[in-house]
Amino acid sequence: MTTGFYKTIDALISPMEQLNVLSKIEVAKLLDSSQSGLYKTFRNCSLAVLNTGNDTDDGKELLERYKDFEISIVQQERGIKLALKNAPTNAFVDDKMIKGILRDVIYTNDEIYSNPKFNLDSTEGITDAVFHMLRNANLLQPGLDPNLVVCWGGHSISRHEYDYTKEVGYSLGLRGLDTCTGCGGAMKGPMKGATIGHAKQRIVNGRYIGITEPGIIAAEAPNPIVNKLVIMPDIEKRLEAFVRLGHGIIVFPGGAGTTEEILYILGILLHPDNKDIPFPLIFTGPENSKEYFERVDEFIGNTLGQEAQSHYQIIVNDPDEVARQMKAGIQKVREFRKHTDDAYYFNWHLKISHDLQMPFIPTHENMRNLELHKNQPCYQLAANLRRAFSGIVAGNVKEDGIRTIEQYGHFELHGDPEIMHPVDELLCSFAKQNRMKLPGRNYVPCYKVIR
Amino acid sequence: MTTGFYKTIDALISPMEQLNVLSKIEVAKLLDSSQSGLYKTFRNCSLAVLNTGNDTDDGKELLERYKDFEISIVQQERGIKLALKNAPTNAFVDDKMIKGILRDVIYTNDEIYSNPKFNLDSTEGITDAVFHMLRNANLLQPGLDPNLVVCWGGHSISRHEYDYTKEVGYSLGLRGLDTCTGCGGAMKGPMKGATIGHAKQRIVNGRYIGITEPGIIAAEAPNPIVNKLVIMPDIEKRLEAFVRLGHGIIVFPGGAGTTEEILYILGILLHPDNKDIPFPLIFTGPENSKEYFERVDEFIGNTLGQEAQSHYQIIVNDPDEVARQMKAGIQKVREFRKHTDDAYYFNWHLKISHDLQMPFIPTHENMRNLELHKNQPCYQLAANLRRAFSGIVAGNVKEDGIRTIEQYGHFELHGDPEIMHPVDELLCSFAKQNRMKLPGRNYVPCYKVIR
Amino acid sequence: MTTGFYKTIDALISPMEQLNVLSKIEVAKLLDSSQSGLYKTFRNCSLAVLNTGNDTDDGKELLERYKDFEISIVQQERGIKLALKNAPTNAFVDDKMIKGILRDVIYTNDEIYSNPKFNLDSTEGITDAVFHMLRNANLLQPGLDPNLVVCWGGHSISRHEYDYTKEVGYSLGLRGLDTCTGCGGAMKGPMKGATIGHAKQRIVNGRYIGITEPGIIAAEAPNPIVNKLVIMPDIEKRLEAFVRLGHGIIVFPGGAGTTEEILYILGILLHPDNKDIPFPLIFTGPENSKEYFERVDEFIGNTLGQEAQSHYQIIVNDPDEVARQMKAGIQKVREFRKHTDDAYYFNWHLKISHDLQMPFIPTHENMRNLELHKNQPCYQLAANLRRAFSGIVAGNVKEDGIRTIEQYGHFELHGDPEIMHPVDELLCSFAKQNRMKLPGRNYVPCYKVIR
Amino acid sequence: MTTGFYKTIDALISPMEQLNVLSKIEVAKLLDSSQSGLYKTFRNCSLAVLNTGNDTDDGKELLERYKDFEISIVQQERGIKLALKNAPTNAFVDDKMIKGILRDVIYTNDEIYSNPKFNLDSTEGITDAVFHMLRNANLLQPGLDPNLVVCWGGHSISRHEYDYTKEVGYSLGLRGLDTCTGCGGAMKGPMKGATIGHAKQRIVNGRYIGITEPGIIAAEAPNPIVNKLVIMPDIEKRLEAFVRLGHGIIVFPGGAGTTEEILYILGILLHPDNKDIPFPLIFTGPENSKEYFERVDEFIGNTLGQEAQSHYQIIVNDPDEVARQMKAGIQKVREFRKHTDDAYYFNWHLKISHDLQMPFIPTHENMRNLELHKNQPCYQLAANLRRAFSGIVAGNVKEDGIRTIEQYGHFELHGDPEIMHPVDELLCSFAKQNRMKLPGRNYVPCYKVIR
Repeated sequence: MTTGFYKTIDALISPMEQLNVLSKIEVAKLLDSSQSGLYKTFRNCSLAVLNTGNDTDDGKELLERYKDFEISIVQQERGIKLALKNAPTNAFVDDKMIKGILRDVIYTNDEIYSNPKFNLDSTEGITDAVFHMLRNANLLQPGLDPNLVVCWGGHSISRHEYDYTKEVGYSLGLRGLDTCTGCGGAMKGPMKGATIGHAKQRIVNGRYIGITEPGIIAAEAPNPIVNKLVIMPDIEKRLEAFVRLGHGIIVFPGGAGTTEEILYILGILLHPDNKDIPFPLIFTGPENSKEYFERVDEFIGNTLGQEAQSHYQIIVNDPDEVARQMKAGIQKVREFRKHTDDAYYFNWHLKISHDLQMPFIPTHENMRNLELHKNQPCYQLAANLRRAFSGIVAGNVKEDGIRTIEQYGHFELHGDPEIMHPVDELLCSFAKQNRMKLPGRNYVPCYKVIR
Repeated sequence: MTTGFYKTIDALISPMEQLNVLSKIEVAKLLDSSQSGLYKTFRNCSLAVLNTGNDTDDGKELLERYKDFEISIVQQERGIKLALKNAPTNAFVDDKMIKGILRDVIYTNDEIYSNPKFNLDSTEGITDAVFHMLRNANLLQPGLDPNLVVCWGGHSISRHEYDYTKEVGYSLGLRGLDTCTGCGGAMKGPMKGATIGHAKQRIVNGRYIGITEPGIIAAEAPNPIVNKLVIMPDIEKRLEAFVRLGHGIIVFPGGAGTTEEILYILGILLHPDNKDIPFPLIFTGPENSKEYFERVDEFIGNTLGQEAQSHYQIIVNDPDEVARQMKAGIQKVREFRKHTDDAYYFNWHLKISHDLQMPFIPTHENMRNLELHKNQPCYQLAANLRRAFSGIVAGNVKEDGIRTIEQYGHFELHGDPEIMHPVDELLCSFAKQNRMKLPGRNYVPCYKVIR
Repeated sequence: MTTGFYKTIDALISPMEQLNVLSKIEVAKLLDSSQSGLYKTFRNCSLAVLNTGNDTDDGKELLERYKDFEISIVQQERGIKLALKNAPTNAFVDDKMIKGILRDVIYTNDEIYSNPKFNLDSTEGITDAVFHMLRNANLLQPGLDPNLVVCWGGHSISRHEYDYTKEVGYSLGLRGLDTCTGCGGAMKGPMKGATIGHAKQRIVNGRYIGITEPGIIAAEAPNPIVNKLVIMPDIEKRLEAFVRLGHGIIVFPGGAGTTEEILYILGILLHPDNKDIPFPLIFTGPENSKEYFERVDEFIGNTLGQEAQSHYQIIVNDPDEVARQMKAGIQKVREFRKHTDDAYYFNWHLKISHDLQMPFIPTHENMRNLELHKNQPCYQLAANLRRAFSGIVAGNVKEDGIRTIEQYGHFELHGDPEIMHPVDELLCSFAKQNRMKLPGRNYVPCYKVIR
Repeated sequence: MTTGFYKTIDALISPMEQLNVLSKIEVAKLLDSSQSGLYKTFRNCSLAVLNTGNDTDDGKELLERYKDFEISIVQQERGIKLALKNAPTNAFVDDKMIKGILRDVIYTNDEIYSNPKFNLDSTEGITDAVFHMLRNANLLQPGLDPNLVVCWGGHSISRHEYDYTKEVGYSLGLRGLDTCTGCGGAMKGPMKGATIGHAKQRIVNGRYIGITEPGIIAAEAPNPIVNKLVIMPDIEKRLEAFVRLGHGIIVFPGGAGTTEEILYILGILLHPDNKDIPFPLIFTGPENSKEYFERVDEFIGNTLGQEAQSHYQIIVNDPDEVARQMKAGIQKVREFRKHTDDAYYFNWHLKISHDLQMPFIPTHENMRNLELHKNQPCYQLAANLRRAFSGIVAGNVKEDGIRTIEQYGHFELHGDPEIMHPVDELLCSFAKQNRMKLPGRNYVPCYKVIR
C-alpha cells in the first residue's frame, strides 16, 4: 500500500523487553489522544524509530510524509502487541519486522513529570530523575567495569568522515569498549565499526546505547544496531545522561549541534568542583577534517581560554591512537571511582551546575537575553554559549524550532565582540565547510549576530 | 559475639538484583530513622530475612532477641553494600553469608503510598498498585506458559503434614510446575520438594516465589530456597498478589490463617462476574489430616453453601493426583487466557470486590461491627468472614495484633447463630487439633463469640 | 502393560547431549546383537538407567524381571530418538520420561578397546584412555576451580546413615562444592543434600557426576539427580577416573566394596612418588556407625601400618566439620596444582602403579594366587588386598561373579595369618553389622579364608 | 622485534575450546617434529591463522617471511597455553591477541588417518570420517533448523565484487541465515555482511563457519569473524564437508578454483540417486560480473548440457532476491529432511560418487591421464573436469603445486575437442578478466591444452 508516494505496511508486532508488560492504566495513557495524553509522543517516536535507515533527517518532512501512520496496543496472553497502520516499509524484511527496531520505544517521561517525588527545580532532583530514567531503561548495570565511550558528532557528515567514525568504532570494539551515541544519522558509524570489532573479539553482549529525545528522534531515527534505547524528555537531561553514564567522550566533526555538546561538557569540566575528576575527552577526524578542529580549538581558546583547551586532546587521522588514549583515560576513571567509592555505572561525583541542567527554551526573547561576555566565570560563559548554540540547532533541525523561525524570523544574539566575533567566525566556517546544510534543502541561517 | 544469649555477627555483604542500584535519595530514605522514614521497616524486614531457618516464629520475640541489630548502606564502585551489625548467625556458613538470603529485602511500598498516580480508593487503582509492585519485583515475565502454583497452609504443622507438603512439591516440580508461597514456616516444604523435582527434570530456572508482608515476615522468615521475594504492604494486597500471579492454588492443613485465605479465594470465585473463569483450587493433606478438611468443608457447606463447595476438590494423601489435577486445571487456565487475550503473567480478568481489597484493620470496634449473617450475597458473606479470621490471625501472630489484645482484651464477634455456631465449632476443632498453638507458648484465644 | 508382575511402557524418547549425534556406523554398532556388537551392553545399561529409583539392587533380578525390554535407535531430522519396548515405568511421570534419565547412556568403551592408539598394557596408555573417556563425556572443564568431592560408601546402608550422607552433601553444597559418586544406591544421599545446598546458594550449574561401569550399573541404577554420567569399562578404570577427576574423597560406611575403594586410594597415597601430593581423605558417619570406622581403622593399622593411617582423618557425626576440612584440603590441592602447573580438571601427577591399573578378573585361580603377606612394600600389599576385596564384591553383587560362585563354589584366599586374621575379623564384623547383606536375600558368604 | 622486514612478537596465549584439554600424548604428538610427527602441520596452520588479515595470499611467501616462527605448548593448571615466538603482529591489538584468532587451530586429521576404524577406501568410510571430523569440531548441532548457506567464490576479486558479497551476506543475515565459507580471501565479505544483519536482528549466536585445509590455509588465512573453524585433511573431504553441512550454496565470481567447486556440486546433483533431493544453488554477482556467469553458464551448457544448467539459477545484482530464493530453497530442504527423517545437521542422503571422494593428486601423469570426453555419464564427466580444474588451482596457489610446476613444467591436458575447446575458452576468458592473477605476481599459466 502507498500513502502519497511512500510505501507503507500494516502489521502486528511484539515489542521487546519493558514495553510488553504494561498495566491497563499505562496502556490507556499511551493511547489517550487528548491534550494531557501521551498518544502524540508515542506515535511520533514510534514513527521515527520505524523510519530507521531512511535518508531523510528532516523531522517535519517525516511527520508529513507518513501522516496516516497509526499505532495501537493489543493485549494478548503473552504480553502486549503493537498494531501498526500505514507504517514505513523500511523497518521490514520480506514483511517481517527487523528485530532491532521498536523495542521499548517509550519509557514514559510522563513518569518523571507527574511524580511529585522528583523535585525538578533542584540540582539533586534533576539528577535523581535522570538516574531513574536510566535505571528504568535498564542501563545501570552494576557488574560491569567502566568501558562506555560516548560518541558525539554531526548527523550529516561527508562519506569520508563517516568512514572514519567506523574505523574509530572498530578500534574501540577491538579493545572491548562499548559505544553510546545520540544514535541517529552518522553516529551509526562508530556502532557499525564496534560491531565488527566485537565480533572479532567474540564479545556477544556488546552494548550499543542510544540516548535520544522526542524532539530529535524524528530528525535522527535511531540506527538499528542500537540495542538499548532511552528517550530522555529534553536536551538537558539527555546531555546529563551522556555524561553520567559514559566514561569518556569522543567528538567527531559536526556543526552547531556538536559545538553545543562540546560547550556543555566544557562547562562541566571547567567547574571548580570537578577539577580532580578524570574525564577523557578526545576530538578526532580524518586528515581532511583537520581544519574543522583547528577552528573549534581556536574558538575555544579565544572565548574560554587555555584552561578549557587543556581538557581535551585533538588526534587527527589515527583511530588506533584514539582508542588507546580512550582506554588509558577510562583506566584512570576506573581508579578514581574505585578510590572514591563512586559507582562505575553512574557518575555521581560530577557537579553539573543548575545553569546547564535547566531546560533552555529558545524563544526569541530567551535568545536575545543570553549573557555572552567575559565578566563571568569560564564555566558560566560556557553554559551560556551552549544555550546560544542550542537555539541555533533547534532553529535548524527541530520541529518546533523550525516553525518558530518560520513564524517570527531570525533569532537575534548579542554580546561582547570578543565573544561574538569568534562565534560569528565559527558559524561562518561551518557554513563554508557545508556543515550547516540539511540534505535536500538549502541552508537558511536562523540567527543574526548583533554586536 | 553474643548479644544476650544469641550469637551474632558483623558483616559487609552485597545484595542481589534490584537493591544494588539505588539512587542517593533512595538510600537516604531507607536510612531515615525519623517517623516518616523507612529505616524501621527496612531494618525489621532485613532482620527477619536474616533469621531464616531459625525455629522461632514469634515476631515479637525475634525483635527483642536481636534488639542491637543494625543495618546500613555503603555505596561502592560496583553498587551498594549492606553493612550489618549484631546480625543473627543463622544466615552464615563459615562466616560467609548464604547467597539466597537478603536479596531485594525491600522494594519500597513507600513508592506506592507516596505516589499520587495510584488511586488506592478504587478497585482499578489498587489492582494497578499490585501490578506495579509485582513488576518492580521482576515477577511478571511475559515469555512463560502458565505454571505457577500457589501453596497455602499453616506455618506450624506436624512433621507428618510437613513431609506431605514436600511430596506434593516434588510431584509438582516433576511436572515442571513452579511454586509460590507465603514463604515462611512449613511452606518451605513444597519448595524443597519442587527443588528435587526440578533437579531431576534438569530445570535450572525454576521459580520459588515468596510473597510476604512486613507484619508477617518477622513471624515467618522466608526460607532460603525462595529466589524471588516481594514484600507487599498489607495482607489484602498480598492476597491479591497471590491470586493475580498464581494459576492455581493448593491449600494444605493450617489453622485460622489458612481459613482466612480459603475464605478470600472463595469470596472471589463466588462473585458472579467470575463464574466462567477457570481457577483450580485443591485442598489436600495426608491421611491423618483428613478430619481437618472434613471440618473445613462442613463449615463452608454450613455457612456459604453448596455452590462454594463446588469450587474446590479435596484430595487426601495422593501427591501425584494433586499434581495431575493441578496441571490439568492450569491447562484450562491457559486455554481461557489465550481465548480471552488475558495475560499469562497477571490475571486481569478476575474481579476482586472492593470489600476484599480494602485493608481491614482489626480494631476491637471493627471486629465488633462485622456483618456475619446470611442476608447478603454469598461472596459478601465470605468477605466478612474473611475479615473475622484476619483479626484472629493478627491477634495470634502479628506484632501489632498481639499488643492490641494484651492492651484491650479479647475481640468480640457477633452475628447470626447459623453463622457463628459453625465458626465457633471450627475454631474449637482447630484448638483441639493443636492448630492454634504457637511453639513454645501456650495458646490463649484472642476472641469471644457473642451470640 | 505388565510383563510378569512388573508394569512396563513403550515410548519414543530423545536422548540428551552426545547420543543424539551419531554416525550411521555408530548406530549400526550399537544395534549389532552379534557377539562382537554392542547391543547387549547398550541394552543392559539402558535398562539399568531406566530402572532408576527402584528398590532392587540385584542386577541379576533386574535383568530377569525385564527380560522383554528392547531398545532401538530411530534417526530423525533433529537427531536420533530411542524407541523403548517393555521399559520399566519408574522413569516416567504421567507417561512422559523424566528428563534426568537416559542421557548419554553409553559412550562406547568400544572406542577404547578397538583403537590401537591406546596402549592398554602401559601405565601411560591406561591413563590416556581414562583421560579420553572423561573428555568424551565432557567431564574435563578447564575453567573451573577445584571443587569436586568424591563420595564413596555402601550402596545399602541404614536409614540413619543415609540421612547423614544427605546432611554432609548439604554442608558441601552450601560451601559450593560439587559431588561425584558411583551414583547408585545410598550414594544419592550426598547429591540430594548438595541439591538443596546449591539451591540456597543460587548455584544453578552444580555438577552431580556419576561414574559407573556396565557390571555395576544394573545393581546400582544411577539416581536421577546425576547430571553427568560416564560408564567406564571396568572397575580399575572407574577407580582411576574417581581419583584423577576428584579433588578429595569422603568415605561413608559401607561393606566389602567400600573397603576395596579405601584400599585402592591407600595403595596410591602410600606410593613413594605420591608422598608430596595433597589429597584430602575423610572417613565419616553418624554416631552409631562409629564402630564401623574403628574396625576399619584397626584393620588398616594392623595390615598396612601407621603411615597408612596418617593419610585419612575420621570425623564422627559432624557434617559441617567434614565440609570445612574438605574445603581446606581442596584449597591445598589448588595451591599444589597451581604451583606444579598440573591441570585442575585431571590429576596427572598422581602415580598409580600398574598393579592397581590392570583389570583383576576374580577367577578362582586368581583369587587363590593373591600374595597377601608383609614381605612387600605397603603400597603393593594394599593393591593385593584391594584385589581380594574386589573378588568378594564381585561374588556378592556382580552378575558374572554371582554366577561363578554358583558354578564353582567359594573363593579360597590364603596368606600370612597377620594379614588374614584381620581380614577375617573385618569381614565378620561386617556380617555382624549386617553390612554384607543384600535386601530381600539372605547373605551367603562367597569366600573361605584358608590359613 | 623484526625478522627480515616483518614485525614479529612473542606471546603466551590461551587457546579456546577444544585445544585446551589435551592429553599428554596428544601434546607430545603435536610437538613431535620428526617425520611422523604433527609439528610441521601444526606450526604452519598456526602461522596461517595468526597471519589473518594480511594482504598476501601466497602461501609460499608467507612461510618464507616468517621462517623463524615457533610454537610450543605449555601445560598449566587451567589447561594448556600456547607459547609463540616470532609471530606475525597482525593478530595482536596493543600486544594482546585478538580473541577470534587461533582457537582450535588443529583438530588432528591424524586421528582419521591413524585410526583403523575409518575405511578410507569405501564411500561409507570416507563419509563417516567427514562426519567425525565435523562432530569433533562441534559443528553438528541437532537443535537447529536448517539455515546454513555455503558461499563459494574467488579469493581475490575486485573491490566492486567484494562489496557485493557483503551486501548478499547482509541480506542473508537479516533473514536469520548463517554463513559458511572457505574463510579466506574475499569470502570474508558474506560474513562481514551477515554480522551486521545479525546485529540488527539481535542474533547473538550466529555461526560463521570456516572449512579449510592445510594446503590452502597458508594462502587464504581465515578471517577473524570465523567463529567455528575446521581444517579438513584434503580438498575432497573439505568439499564433502561443505555439501553435507550446508543447506544451500551461493557461488560468487571467481576463477579456476570456483569452477572446480561448481563442477564438484554439479557432479553430485547430476547423479541419478540425487535427483529428488532439493539443493538450492545460486550463482550471483554485481552487474559488471554478468559476463563471468554467462561464460560459466555457456561452458556448462556446452560440456554437461541442459540438465546441468537446470540445477542452478543465475541472479544478477539483486542481493535481496538471492536471499529470498535461498531462504525459499532451504525451506524445501527442511521439508524434505523432515519427510525423509534425514538429519538437519548432516546431509546423509546425498550420494557422492567414489570418483568425487577420492583424493586427486595432480601429478603430471594424473593430469595427463584424465578422461575428458562425452562417452560417459554427465556426472562422471563433471567429476573428471573437476579434477582438471583442481590441478590448475594447485599449480597456481598451493605450495606443492607451485613447486611441481617450477620443477617439471606445465601440466598437459588432453581430451575431445568438444570438451577441451570450451575449457580452453573458459580459462582464456578468466585470464582476460584478470581472474587468474595473484596480487603482486604476474600470472603464469600452469597448463597446456593438448588437443
